[in-house]
Amino acid sequence: MGAESDTVLLAIVSLLSACQHGYYARLVGRSRMKHKVMPPSVTGPPEFERTFRAQQNCVEFFPIFLVLLWTAGIFFYEEVAAALGLLYILARHLYFKGYVEAAQGRLPGFYLNLISLFLLLALAALGITNALLNKYLDVNILKKVHHVF
Amino acid sequence: MGAESDTVLLAIVSLLSACQHGYYARLVGRSRMKHKVMPPSVTGPPEFERTFRAQQNCVEFFPIFLVLLWTAGIFFYEEVAAALGLLYILARHLYFKGYVEAAQGRLPGFYLNLISLFLLLALAALGITNALLNKYLDVNILKKVHHVF
Amino acid sequence: MGAESDTVLLAIVSLLSACQHGYYARLVGRSRMKHKVMPPSVTGPPEFERTFRAQQNCVEFFPIFLVLLWTAGIFFYEEVAAALGLLYILARHLYFKGYVEAAQGRLPGFYLNLISLFLLLALAALGITNALLNKYLDVNILKKVHHVF
Repeated sequence: MGAESDTVLLAIVSLLSACQHGYYARLVGRSRMKHKVMPPSVTGPPEFERTFRAQQNCVEFFPIFLVLLWTAGIFFYEEVAAALGLLYILARHLYFKGYVEAAQGRLPGFYLNLISLFLLLALAALGITNALLNKYLDVNILKKVHHVF
Repeated sequence: MGAESDTVLLAIVSLLSACQHGYYARLVGRSRMKHKVMPPSVTGPPEFERTFRAQQNCVEFFPIFLVLLWTAGIFFYEEVAAALGLLYILARHLYFKGYVEAAQGRLPGFYLNLISLFLLLALAALGITNALLNKYLDVNILKKVHHVF
Repeated sequence: MGAESDTVLLAIVSLLSACQHGYYARLVGRSRMKHKVMPPSVTGPPEFERTFRAQQNCVEFFPIFLVLLWTAGIFFYEEVAAALGLLYILARHLYFKGYVEAAQGRLPGFYLNLISLFLLLALAALGITNALLNKYLDVNILKKVHHVF
């Protein structure tokens, strides 16, 4: 076990998120049956369309989330990135649940999503700046900060 | 060559799958021309809509598949994960081809997709449990199992 | 810092691309407000539909791009893959901007996208062939080529 041991938390969060996205695809399938919306149609009663758009929005953001999670986790700290990843999963849950009920209901979860993504982005940018300084100028600020505490 | 040599099979399967998804995007483009569905429209004759939805469903599952493939391959065994990845690619082929012909035709491929994804998930969960035991309790069950055979 | 130092350029390009995709999602949101297209609806005036389809097309190709970028960067050369990744980001910008203005306007950016993806695919295929030769036949052609220059 080498690099695996430094990414196991990121792998767990990614796996949970993948399961969540699979589950949302299943909820769309169930909503199809409930509202008798036959594939390939994606239009129907408002509740079905909200469920479908909620899942589509999750799909759109999933690769973005994975990139931010892993760059923040590998170049900054794995534990912090994994914790923010769990926050994102929770936010997606609120978003999806709220959106299925009413279009306005998607907003609280959506803002929480954005917060977790922006925090991951900030950590990733910090970690990558440090890695660049380390690679080209041989300076490692994160290690020094780590040393102080 | 370090970590690359332990992930080359996963990289090959990912690359094949990426090519497959690019090919499906092209088939949607061809179906647009055949049925004169001009972008940005995504509605048209049933055959076009089935082709489009088949591709969209592949897109929805692609990041899920990649997460499962790589966590199973890195934390369990690369060869087994790569083989299941090939099964997924085959299942997607059956799904897409079947869906273009008729909405019911998507089901055999779809169930085979689910089977390969659930097997990858089981392997990933096993491998990650092992990595956690190894990291925090210094126990490596996979190595012991490997030793027995 | 181990493997991180060999992937920092790939991580930067992935991060930039993730930000670009987040930005496109925001532009769709702005276009919703401008044209009063309320979620979950995705139909409306042609300009909104073009903006929405432009973003959707980016979403469809994002995981494909990431797979090609990282396999080319890890198995061939990081710098070359990162440069092609920047070309892809530029091409997506041209594509999106052109598509929002007119359906025909998407084509120049789209062809540039395809060029950068095919180049990444060629590099990835080369790099992976080399890794396979190295793993199973203990031959490393890339190192030899590197040695000549």
